Amino acid sequence: MSNNLKKLQDWLEGKRLSGFWVTKPENVYWLTEFRGSFGIVLVQKKGRNLLITDSRYKSIAEKLCKEKNFDFFLYDKDFTAQVKKEFAGSAYGIEDSLTVARLQGLQKAFPRINWKPQSGVLEKLRKEKTEDEIQKIKTAQAHVDEIFKTFFHQNLKAGVTEKEVAYKLRQAIEDGGKYDHAFDLIVAFGANSAVPHHQNSDAKLKKNQNILVDCGAKFAGYCSDMTRNFWFGDTVDPEYQEKYNLLLWAQEASLDEIEPGAKTKAVDAVCRKILGTETKYFTHSLGHGVGLEIHEMPNLSPRSKDTLGVDEVVTTEPGLYYEGKFGIRIEDLVVVREDGAEILSKTSKELITISK
Amino acid sequence: MSNNLKKLQDWLEGKRLSGFWVTKPENVYWLTEFRGSFGIVLVQKKGRNLLITDSRYKSIAEKLCKEKNFDFFLYDKDFTAQVKKEFAGSAYGIEDSLTVARLQGLQKAFPRINWKPQSGVLEKLRKEKTEDEIQKIKTAQAHVDEIFKTFFHQNLKAGVTEKEVAYKLRQAIEDGGKYDHAFDLIVAFGANSAVPHHQNSDAKLKKNQNILVDCGAKFAGYCSDMTRNFWFGDTVDPEYQEKYNLLLWAQEASLDEIEPGAKTKAVDAVCRKILGTETKYFTHSLGHGVGLEIHEMPNLSPRSKDTLGVDEVVTTEPGLYYEGKFGIRIEDLVVVREDGAEILSKTSKELITISK
Repeated sequence: MSNNLKKLQDWLEGKRLSGFWVTKPENVYWLTEFRGSFGIVLVQKKGRNLLITDSRYKSIAEKLCKEKNFDFFLYDKDFTAQVKKEFAGSAYGIEDSLTVARLQGLQKAFPRINWKPQSGVLEKLRKEKTEDEIQKIKTAQAHVDEIFKTFFHQNLKAGVTEKEVAYKLRQAIEDGGKYDHAFDLIVAFGANSAVPHHQNSDAKLKKNQNILVDCGAKFAGYCSDMTRNFWFGDTVDPEYQEKYNLLLWAQEASLDEIEPGAKTKAVDAVCRKILGTETKYFTHSLGHGVGLEIHEMPNLSPRSKDTLGVDEVVTTEPGLYYEGKFGIRIEDLVVVREDGAEILSKTSKELITISK
Repeated sequence: MSNNLKKLQDWLEGKRLSGFWVTKPENVYWLTEFRGSFGIVLVQKKGRNLLITDSRYKSIAEKLCKEKNFDFFLYDKDFTAQVKKEFAGSAYGIEDSLTVARLQGLQKAFPRINWKPQSGVLEKLRKEKTEDEIQKIKTAQAHVDEIFKTFFHQNLKAGVTEKEVAYKLRQAIEDGGKYDHAFDLIVAFGANSAVPHHQNSDAKLKKNQNILVDCGAKFAGYCSDMTRNFWFGDTVDPEYQEKYNLLLWAQEASLDEIEPGAKTKAVDAVCRKILGTETKYFTHSLGHGVGLEIHEMPNLSPRSKDTLGVDEVVTTEPGLYYEGKFGIRIEDLVVVREDGAEILSKTSKELITISK
């Protein structure tokens, strides 16, 4: 049996639910490795565990079913009548990320089933990664680290726009289709970097500006995420360098706190303590889990109740944002190991200066 | 007042609703032209019409509010308490494309409001395009037509893979970031083209194979969509040519049926009548609306109850799929005008042969 199926069945044990109806693509993939654009998984305490999809995906779905111990079930025009016979109970969990329209559709199609929306069940189970999943994330991140060795020295020139750099970087990440970009990457020059979720603009790079780059690759479904900073010109603004050094110290300290059992709000707190009065310029959470989604559980923030577990993959990415001046964010991607953080993002965190 | 706001208010007139809470990005954009990653629109019979977003987007949102006659409302930590004072009624429509989790969140935050999920309300209003919207769709399609003039002659070579061609075509469409791709484009060689939603593979192009290409660009938020077919080699398979000619006849006939007031199932039926016994190889709908979304209302299919209206933008795209042999789909993008179809996709529908 697939280990992940087992995890969901273990979760079901303690619940007044006969099973779980899974439609979110990342959750379907996590259970079955099925990647088609339409797939449903039905996991049950009693009765069969089904991977449901249409005729387009029949052969690949049947192959995965054998490997993962699911039964293939065809979605065709008799689907509703046929699948009714499979339900071995009356109360089923569904993801609360489902749309209201789809819930209403299920209620209409299966009036005898009590559909119970659940929040984040599979997402919690997905926190702990297998070595195979970690390997995919490592591959994605190593690809980005390789690009960072030369890309910015080649592409940061006076007059180039944020959009131009971002587009070339995305092409480098995609590498002719071998990888995907994990999210809309950010390239921000000067004062634009003071906006944490800046939308890349036509602003042109000028001498003696800072640059913030936040990007990630996706490999075999798994994401990476890293942020680095550059100084374009010969002379780094001493104020920028001072804030940079402070932030790097705080970021490194947060890495030291990462271990199984650590409260994520405590990891966040260590970072804010070092930032001291500057904490008011750190306007977002410390970090987040990374996997099939770019933002997933756990959450590292002052309000989080999460505790880190072994083999979780998370970011720590404090930032300092000075409106109208500059912003800095330093972000590493790490695996929580028994002996602390295994850092996947290998690109140096020394402030890189580029002058042309 | 924005014309689109007026359309939604007219719709509200006949309904037992005090207003509509809009969160789907395409619908928010259609009402306000706001494009940020987080925005909510509240439209009311009485009381203010609000565009709600966070501080990141304050300046752009305030500008749009002036143009479109909305009031800007800041989403911050006091949001729930503040926005409560704005509700001038107790029953509000929301989109049923909202997630169950978000509906539950609204019910918890605003327990006195009766939230009423509605299906496709704004999507129906969005069917009829303004000339400005049509112009954006034309721009997107003209860009693709321009690419088609040379791209395939340059890039179809023996041994090239579907993925390689698809990636280069996507780059050509994106044109350094000036456009976006409207959807995951399809490049299918030979028997792969018999799968209507083929996923581009590493299959290599061979002499005397057919090629199916389905792609679109996105310009200023608006999509285009077109499918064309090629023959790679000197000698077209006579069976392929015969089916191609039949399909082209049927597709042209469907264009002749397009006019305001036409039942979409009648347009579809004309096409199937010409295909005759081959109709069993035409395994999908005839077409769909195109706009801010690549698939939107109306639906052109045997089961549709839709009637075409003036200034709607739709595709007609019959296909014939012979498993293990080849598939053909011919797709045009048209505007429904008083005097019939205005065809936006200008690329020739003669079967193009390419030999190298």
